[in-house]
Amino acid sequence: MTTNDNTTALDSVREKLNNEIPDELSISRVTYEGPELIIYTDTPRKFAEQDGLVRRLASTVRKRITVRPAPGTQTSPTDAEPRIRNLIPDKAGITNLEFYPETGEVLIEAEKPGLVIGSRASTLREITKEVGWTPEVLRTPPMESSTVDNVRNFLKQERGERRQFLEQVGEEIHRESGQDPEWVRVTTLGCCREVGRASFILSTPESRVLIDCGDKPGAEGEVPYLQLPEANPIADLDAVVLTHAHLDHSALLPLLFKYGYDGPVYTTEATRDLMGLLQLDYLDVAAKEGRTPPYESEMVREELKHTITLDYGDVTDIAPGIKLTLHNAGHILGSAVAHFHIGSGFHNLVFSGDIHHTDTRLFNGASNDFPRVETLVLESTYGRRNDYQTDQEDSERRLIELINETSERDGTVVIPAFAVGRSQELMLVLEEAMREGKIPTMPVYLDGMIREATAIHTAYPEFLRDGLRQRILHDNENPFLADQFQQVDGGDQMREEIAAGDPCIILSTSGMVTGGPIISWLELLGGDPENTLLFVGYQAQGTLGRRIQRGERKIPFSDSRRGKELTLQFRVESVSGFSGHADRNGLEDFVRTMEPRPHKILCVHGDESATDQFSSALYQKFNLRTYAPKNTETFRLG
Amino acid sequence: MTTNDNTTALDSVREKLNNEIPDELSISRVTYEGPELIIYTDTPRKFAEQDGLVRRLASTVRKRITVRPAPGTQTSPTDAEPRIRNLIPDKAGITNLEFYPETGEVLIEAEKPGLVIGSRASTLREITKEVGWTPEVLRTPPMESSTVDNVRNFLKQERGERRQFLEQVGEEIHRESGQDPEWVRVTTLGCCREVGRASFILSTPESRVLIDCGDKPGAEGEVPYLQLPEANPIADLDAVVLTHAHLDHSALLPLLFKYGYDGPVYTTEATRDLMGLLQLDYLDVAAKEGRTPPYESEMVREELKHTITLDYGDVTDIAPGIKLTLHNAGHILGSAVAHFHIGSGFHNLVFSGDIHHTDTRLFNGASNDFPRVETLVLESTYGRRNDYQTDQEDSERRLIELINETSERDGTVVIPAFAVGRSQELMLVLEEAMREGKIPTMPVYLDGMIREATAIHTAYPEFLRDGLRQRILHDNENPFLADQFQQVDGGDQMREEIAAGDPCIILSTSGMVTGGPIISWLELLGGDPENTLLFVGYQAQGTLGRRIQRGERKIPFSDSRRGKELTLQFRVESVSGFSGHADRNGLEDFVRTMEPRPHKILCVHGDESATDQFSSALYQKFNLRTYAPKNTETFRLG
Repeated sequence: MTTNDNTTALDSVREKLNNEIPDELSISRVTYEGPELIIYTDTPRKFAEQDGLVRRLASTVRKRITVRPAPGTQTSPTDAEPRIRNLIPDKAGITNLEFYPETGEVLIEAEKPGLVIGSRASTLREITKEVGWTPEVLRTPPMESSTVDNVRNFLKQERGERRQFLEQVGEEIHRESGQDPEWVRVTTLGCCREVGRASFILSTPESRVLIDCGDKPGAEGEVPYLQLPEANPIADLDAVVLTHAHLDHSALLPLLFKYGYDGPVYTTEATRDLMGLLQLDYLDVAAKEGRTPPYESEMVREELKHTITLDYGDVTDIAPGIKLTLHNAGHILGSAVAHFHIGSGFHNLVFSGDIHHTDTRLFNGASNDFPRVETLVLESTYGRRNDYQTDQEDSERRLIELINETSERDGTVVIPAFAVGRSQELMLVLEEAMREGKIPTMPVYLDGMIREATAIHTAYPEFLRDGLRQRILHDNENPFLADQFQQVDGGDQMREEIAAGDPCIILSTSGMVTGGPIISWLELLGGDPENTLLFVGYQAQGTLGRRIQRGERKIPFSDSRRGKELTLQFRVESVSGFSGHADRNGLEDFVRTMEPRPHKILCVHGDESATDQFSSALYQKFNLRTYAPKNTETFRLG
Repeated sequence: MTTNDNTTALDSVREKLNNEIPDELSISRVTYEGPELIIYTDTPRKFAEQDGLVRRLASTVRKRITVRPAPGTQTSPTDAEPRIRNLIPDKAGITNLEFYPETGEVLIEAEKPGLVIGSRASTLREITKEVGWTPEVLRTPPMESSTVDNVRNFLKQERGERRQFLEQVGEEIHRESGQDPEWVRVTTLGCCREVGRASFILSTPESRVLIDCGDKPGAEGEVPYLQLPEANPIADLDAVVLTHAHLDHSALLPLLFKYGYDGPVYTTEATRDLMGLLQLDYLDVAAKEGRTPPYESEMVREELKHTITLDYGDVTDIAPGIKLTLHNAGHILGSAVAHFHIGSGFHNLVFSGDIHHTDTRLFNGASNDFPRVETLVLESTYGRRNDYQTDQEDSERRLIELINETSERDGTVVIPAFAVGRSQELMLVLEEAMREGKIPTMPVYLDGMIREATAIHTAYPEFLRDGLRQRILHDNENPFLADQFQQVDGGDQMREEIAAGDPCIILSTSGMVTGGPIISWLELLGGDPENTLLFVGYQAQGTLGRRIQRGERKIPFSDSRRGKELTLQFRVESVSGFSGHADRNGLEDFVRTMEPRPHKILCVHGDESATDQFSSALYQKFNLRTYAPKNTETFRLG
C-alpha cells in the first residue's frame, strides 16, 4: 500500500517536472532521500547550463531538489579531478576531493567553500558542465577539530548505508496526502517546572515526533518520561528533532536507538557535531564517576548515521502532515527554534528550545518572525519576577573589574562554563579586554572540551554573527587563536603547576559544577581567599554550582579523599549578563514582538516559581492562554 | 513472579486469619475471587456459630470475606433442601433454591429476601449451622422482568467459568504492594465540551482503569477516542468502571471485549441489568436503522460475565494501588459517583458521573460526602449561567396544568423519555395526580422499554428512596402496578388505534427523539394542534429533540415515506424540573457542601458554553483550580 501510494505520488511529481523542463533535458529517475527530492538525469551537463532551473523546479514541487547524473554519464574520476581543480581558484584551498560513483557526487572540502561555489553557484554549475559530476562542498575548519573530522569520516564511510536509510525515510514521509488531522497534541516528557531533561512528543492521529531528549544536571536518575504511552512504541516515532546540543536537551537521544528507533534526527549541522562531542563526553564522565551510562558509544554513532541536517529557514516535510522549519535561537552554536506547520494551515506550533533574544558577541538574537504561530512552547529559565540580567556592557565591565581586583591580589579567576557557548563568549570578551589593555595579558587556560568546542565553532561560521564570521575566516584575526588561550592537556599534574604558578584565568567545565575538571580546580584553588570563583551561567537546582552560589562553603572532596570536606575560602561572585538565556525582559520581548502573537503559551524549562510567575505575567500582559504544565501532561492544540 | 508474590501475600493473610480465629475453627484454603477473600473451612458449622467473627476478620485484613465449606463437609442437597425451607418463614416466598457443590453455596431466590437473611443475618447463620452450606440470597422481583431473569440465568450457567475469571482477577489486583505511585493521570476520551461519549482513563505507572464508554446521541459516528495511546492496549486495562447504565455512558463498553479486554467491569447490580437491557436495545435500534453496530450481542454477554457488582460504600481494591468506592448519584437506578483512592493516601479522585443533587420521588440526592477528594471530575450538563430548573413542586404543577389543558381540548400528551429514570419519575407523579384527582384518570401508555425498565426498578428497591421502597414491596401499594399504566405491545397497529382513540398520555423512548417509537408518535400525533409534545429531560446538541425544542417544525418522515416532510403542528412545551441532572444551583451546591473541598475540578459532560461558564464560575466562587478540558487531553494529578 505505502509503496504503491508513494510510487504513484512520485510519478505525478515526475510528470510535473517533465512539464517544466526544456525538451533537451531528460530525467531518468526521481526518488526521495529523506525530505529531499533527487533527480537523476542522463543529461547532467545540459541541466547545469540552465541557470535557475532547479530553483524553479523546487518551487513547483515544493521540495528541496538535488540533481545527480545517471550512472555512466560522467567523465572518469582520473580525468575529472584535474579539470575540477582547474576550475576552482587556488585561494579556495582544497584539502580533499572524493568521488562517489554510486550517486555521481564529488565531495570537495576546502578552506574557503565560497570560492568553490562561486557567485550564484556559477562555479558548481561549471564543474557539472565540464565533468558531469554533482559537487558537494564542505568547509575545512580553520582550527583543527577531531570531532568534525571524526563525524565527517564516519559519515563518508557510512555513505552507502545512509542512502538506503534516506530513501526509506523519504518513503515514510511521503506515505500520506497530509490532510488536516483531527487533533494535534503535545505531551510533556520533561523540563516542566524544572530545568533539565527537555523532551516533548508532538502527535497527530497519523504522526508522532519527539523534540529533544535531555538529562537533568544534578539529578542523573531523573530522565524524560519515555515510558509514557504517548511516547511508545519509541521505535515507531516518525521523527526526532533536536533544538541544540546541550546535554539537558540531547544527552539521552542515543538511548532512543537502543530502544529500537531507527528513524531520522533533524537538527543543524553544527548541532550534529556538537552533540556527538558532548554525548561522548557524557559517557566518559559517567564512566569516570562509576555510573553505568544508559547507552554505549555505538548508539552515538547510530544517531549520527540517522541525522539529517537542516539549514535555518528550510521548510522540510518530516512526517505526513508535519513540516519543520528551524530558526536561529541565539543560544549556542547551531541552536534552533523549531517551527512546526501541521496539516494545510491547521495548526502552527513553535518550540523555542533555549533562546537568547538580543544579540551577543557570538550570535544574532533569537528569531521570532514566523508567518503563523498558534501555540508557543517557551523556555522560562529566567522567568521569575526579578530575573533581570545586567546588560552585556555592564557585565563585561564587572567581569573586567573582578579580574583586575583578583590579579591585583595575585589571585586566579576560575570560571565554570559550559564548553559550548559561554566559553566562546568569554574568550571573545577576554581577548578584546587584553588587546585593549583593560586587563593585563595573562594566560587563559581552557580545561575540558572548551578548545575542541571552539574549533567546531570555526567549522560553522555561518551560525555566527557577521563581523565575527569575517574575523574567524581571516587567520590573523581569529580571536580564538590568540596566544593567551592555552589548552589544559596535561591532567592533574598540569593543573597543579598552573595553580602554583602566576595569576591567570581558568575556564573549565562543567558549567554547573556537577563534575569534570572544575572539581579539581575547586580543590586546588578554593582554599585560597586571593582567588575568585566566578559564575557566568545559569546554575540549575540540585547542582553543586547552585549550592555554592547560594552560600554553601563546605563541599565534599572528590573520590580520592572521600569523606573529608573542603572549606571554600575564595571569593564567589556571579555576573549575570553572559547567560545564553534571555532574561525576564528578553523572554517578554520575544513574545511582545511576535507578529502574529500565539494564542496559547506553555511555559516550560524553568523552576516551578519561574514557570508559574512567567505564565501569570504573560497572561496578564498579553491576555493569552498561558500554562505552566507539569511533566506527563498532554495538551490538545487545535 | 506475580503468582509467587501473590502466594506469599496470601500466606500472610492466612496467618493473620489463623491468629484471629478460635482454635476449634479450621481454615483449609484462602483465595481471592475478584476483590473478595474466600475462606474455605472444614468446620463451616462452627464458623457460623461465631456471631460477628467474619466482620472482625474482614476488618483485620481489610477485605470483603466470604466463608465457604470445604468440599464434603456439607449435608447432601436432598437432605439439606427441606431443612433450609424449614428454617425460613413461609412469608419469605422462596421461588427458587439451587445448590452449587463446587463452592458449597446454595442460592436462595425469594420475594422477601430480608426474611431469608433474618435480623443481623441470624437466619443465614442458622442455615449454615444446620446444613453446612453457604447461602446466597437474591430478590425475586415483584414485577416480572425478562432482563433480570435472563441475566441471572446466564450468570448461573456461567458460574464455573466465572469463578476462574474471578480468581484470575484476584491475582491481578493483589499482584503488587501498592506503594504510592509517582504520578496519577486522567485522560479525556470523550464528553468534554459536549454531552455524550463519556469515557476517561485513570492511570498510574502500574495501573490503568477506564471509566465509562458511551455513545453520543445524535452523532453516532463520534465515539470515545479509544485509539489514543493512553488507552492502549485495551486488552491490558486493569479494570473498567461504569457509573450508570445510560447509553451515553455504557453503549460502547461491550466493544472493549471485542478489542480483547477480558478484565472486570465494576458497577452496581442494578446498573448491570439496566446496561444489558439498554445495550441490547442499542443493537436492535442500529439494526432497524440499517447501521452496522460496532459489536454483536455476544459481546454484551461477555461483558455481563465479566461484571463484578459493588454496593454503595464498599471500599474495593480494583487494581494495584487503586481502591474504588461507589456512592449514590441520584440520577437513575443504580447510578454512582465513583471515588478512587490512589496509593496510601497519595491522591483521591472523584468522577461524578451524572448526578441529581437534591432528592427526587425516586432517589435520594447524590452523595458528596467523601473522607478526602483532591480532584473532582464533574458533570456540567446544566452548567450555564441561566440553567436553573423550576423546583419539583412547580414542575409537577406545570405538568398537571399542561395535561389538563390538553385533555380539555380532547388532545393527547406525548412525552419523550429515557426508558430508565425519567419515565419512572413521571409514572409516580401521574399515578399520584390521578389518585388525588388532580388530573382525570386516563390511560398512560408506556412505549419502548419503559415497562421492562420499571420492572428492573422493582427488583432493586434498595436503590430507591425509603418510602418508595416500602410501597413497592407491598403489592397493593406498588405505584408502578396501577391499572392506568399500559404497555404498548401491539406495534404500529396498536399505536394507530391509541392515536385515534380517547385522550391519553404517552411515555415513549427515545428520550432525545433520536429514534425508537417516539418517531411513530410524532407522525401519528404531530399534525394535530390539539395534542401536546412535552419535553421533560435534557436534549443534547444534534438530536432531533433539541431541534424541535428550539423551534424546528418541519421534520423528515421515517423510512416508509422517505423524502417527504412532516410539519409539526402540536403544542411543544418543556418542563425543566424533572431532569435527572442537577441544575446550575444543584451543581454548585454539590461543590459548596463538599467537606473537604477538592483542590481541582474538571468540568465535563456539558456543551462548550456550559463547561466554560461553569468552570469560570467555580473558580470565582470557590477559588479552586478549574478546567474545561478538551477531548484527548491528559492531566496530571498529584
